[in-house]
Amino acid sequence: MLRGKQTWWFENRPVILGAATVVGPDEGDGPLAPCFDLIHPELDMQQKSWEKAERLLMEQATDIAIRNAGVSKEQLQFFIGGDLLNQIISSTFAARELELPYLGVFGACSTSMESLALSAMLVNSRSARRVLAGVCSHNCTAEKQFRYPTEYGSQKPPTAQYTVTGAGAAVIAEEGSGPVITSATIGRVVDMGITDPFNMGAAMAPAAVDTIQSHFEDTGRSPEDYDLIVTGDLASVGHPIAKDLLERNGVPIGKTEFTDCGLMIYDMVKQKNIIQAGGSGCACSAVVTYGHLLKRVRKGELKRILVVATGALMSPLSYQQGETIPCIAHAVSIEGGG
Amino acid sequence: MLRGKQTWWFENRPVILGAATVVGPDEGDGPLAPCFDLIHPELDMQQKSWEKAERLLMEQATDIAIRNAGVSKEQLQFFIGGDLLNQIISSTFAARELELPYLGVFGACSTSMESLALSAMLVNSRSARRVLAGVCSHNCTAEKQFRYPTEYGSQKPPTAQYTVTGAGAAVIAEEGSGPVITSATIGRVVDMGITDPFNMGAAMAPAAVDTIQSHFEDTGRSPEDYDLIVTGDLASVGHPIAKDLLERNGVPIGKTEFTDCGLMIYDMVKQKNIIQAGGSGCACSAVVTYGHLLKRVRKGELKRILVVATGALMSPLSYQQGETIPCIAHAVSIEGGG
Repeated sequence: MLRGKQTWWFENRPVILGAATVVGPDEGDGPLAPCFDLIHPELDMQQKSWEKAERLLMEQATDIAIRNAGVSKEQLQFFIGGDLLNQIISSTFAARELELPYLGVFGACSTSMESLALSAMLVNSRSARRVLAGVCSHNCTAEKQFRYPTEYGSQKPPTAQYTVTGAGAAVIAEEGSGPVITSATIGRVVDMGITDPFNMGAAMAPAAVDTIQSHFEDTGRSPEDYDLIVTGDLASVGHPIAKDLLERNGVPIGKTEFTDCGLMIYDMVKQKNIIQAGGSGCACSAVVTYGHLLKRVRKGELKRILVVATGALMSPLSYQQGETIPCIAHAVSIEGGG
Repeated sequence: MLRGKQTWWFENRPVILGAATVVGPDEGDGPLAPCFDLIHPELDMQQKSWEKAERLLMEQATDIAIRNAGVSKEQLQFFIGGDLLNQIISSTFAARELELPYLGVFGACSTSMESLALSAMLVNSRSARRVLAGVCSHNCTAEKQFRYPTEYGSQKPPTAQYTVTGAGAAVIAEEGSGPVITSATIGRVVDMGITDPFNMGAAMAPAAVDTIQSHFEDTGRSPEDYDLIVTGDLASVGHPIAKDLLERNGVPIGKTEFTDCGLMIYDMVKQKNIIQAGGSGCACSAVVTYGHLLKRVRKGELKRILVVATGALMSPLSYQQGETIPCIAHAVSIEGGG
């Protein structure tokens, strides 16, 4: 494997053999609804707790991904998963059901691409033939854990983002047919001193920019090498900041489509009152990528895309202790396969 | 890289170029005190919160490991870290200072070997020249987060374990002199239905056994191929259970030294009142391995060891919701190098 400073080149072209997305009612009301494998009409999904509902999302997404990949569970070697909950319990409980060797990862909302990058690296280096990657988030578990009790009905500023209820999973394999993963850039922690957890898009934008620039430096590529560059969940406040910063740093995106998963998953007009600045959460970039973008790649509408998942790595405790919000972004490039 | 079902063979023999351990006062009172790089005489380490103290441990351990490895920070490519705190904030804040591309991982106390295994895999597959792995835990942050407020003075049953205050870090490199990492076995989630968080050793023992057996199956090795097999933190309740289970499953350990980091780090007689069944926490297996065991390997006293770090993957919330304790163990084999 060739390597840039922080980029892995996957010369063996690991294949995304199959993927799956499961979402909640608000995502099912959004413009990408036709792309999802399963839409739950209720947030509680007939479970006794929000956490059990989140776990169900992960279990369903991983099950459907395995089925969509046309493999059996026994043909998979590892499960790499993570989520936003303390001690990533949703992933762990899913791993218990899957009975696969399990690597738990955490990068807040960037976990989607952290798990995909590591899965591709295992397959590319012949350390595994097939790996399952998956992440999930649930609006109510995140609200409860990071903000206020869900019964509280607290109001939010327009800079706040709405955690996506959903799970996305993918089977990455050394051979087969499907989109291929050609490189991944692992991000550094970037912290510009923002302390407002209701403005995470602004906090995360510099991390996205840092990773995008590093990706171009390491690979020698430039924006025009991509049909689409998509950030994870910067939403309506953070995404324009990222665009500005890239221009100021001399890496204007130019004519390449440059958007954000947090702006795509909901109807920014019709659902404005609920979602404020847009979507966030591990599942945001996962369901947009695995549901919507991979379909566009498979159809040939997009030949090469760069998914830059962003994460705000603070905890409620670190915030309460006056710490700023450390952020990160991991980028994965995906191309139309054979 | 050859592969068993869940084992990576590191044919390029990644080297542990340098390692470091930083601990608190109770660990400094224990029998391994001479092995640690730095011992803090006070639990608060003159920081304003337990969390800031834990972060300091991680920052010091990573700094000293880099120095001990004889490299500069700029020569490292990735930092793979994790800890027990919600959203692994200690590792994240350390990553912010290190300014290295960062992969956050979580496997509870097994994070020590999860991070080491992944680091070795990156180096072995030529995806990185040098990787820094590190984990930490602090008795008071763990008590506060997982059990009761530290001011509470709650009493504990004798099956309870005592979270190690410390951090361990290592630099893994493609060349240089030092002990080498020759394989790693990634564990599955094993859950035998135990719900008592004051008896984690018993909960984790079957996971350790599952990984040890898988390691032998995948590698064709048997216990006598090792001079020492050490579990992470099963302590006085869990370790004998693991030994019994291995015998019952037809894999008796025989004459190979078989012990547990949770039994080694404290004086089990003199410190009994504090530590109950023994040590636990991410730092337990990390400081025993990086501090004590690597020194024995370097001296030639041990030619080949297998470190099987165990983790109890529950969260306080999953426990309160009546869930059982899912457990995992990851094993790494280390040999005397050139």
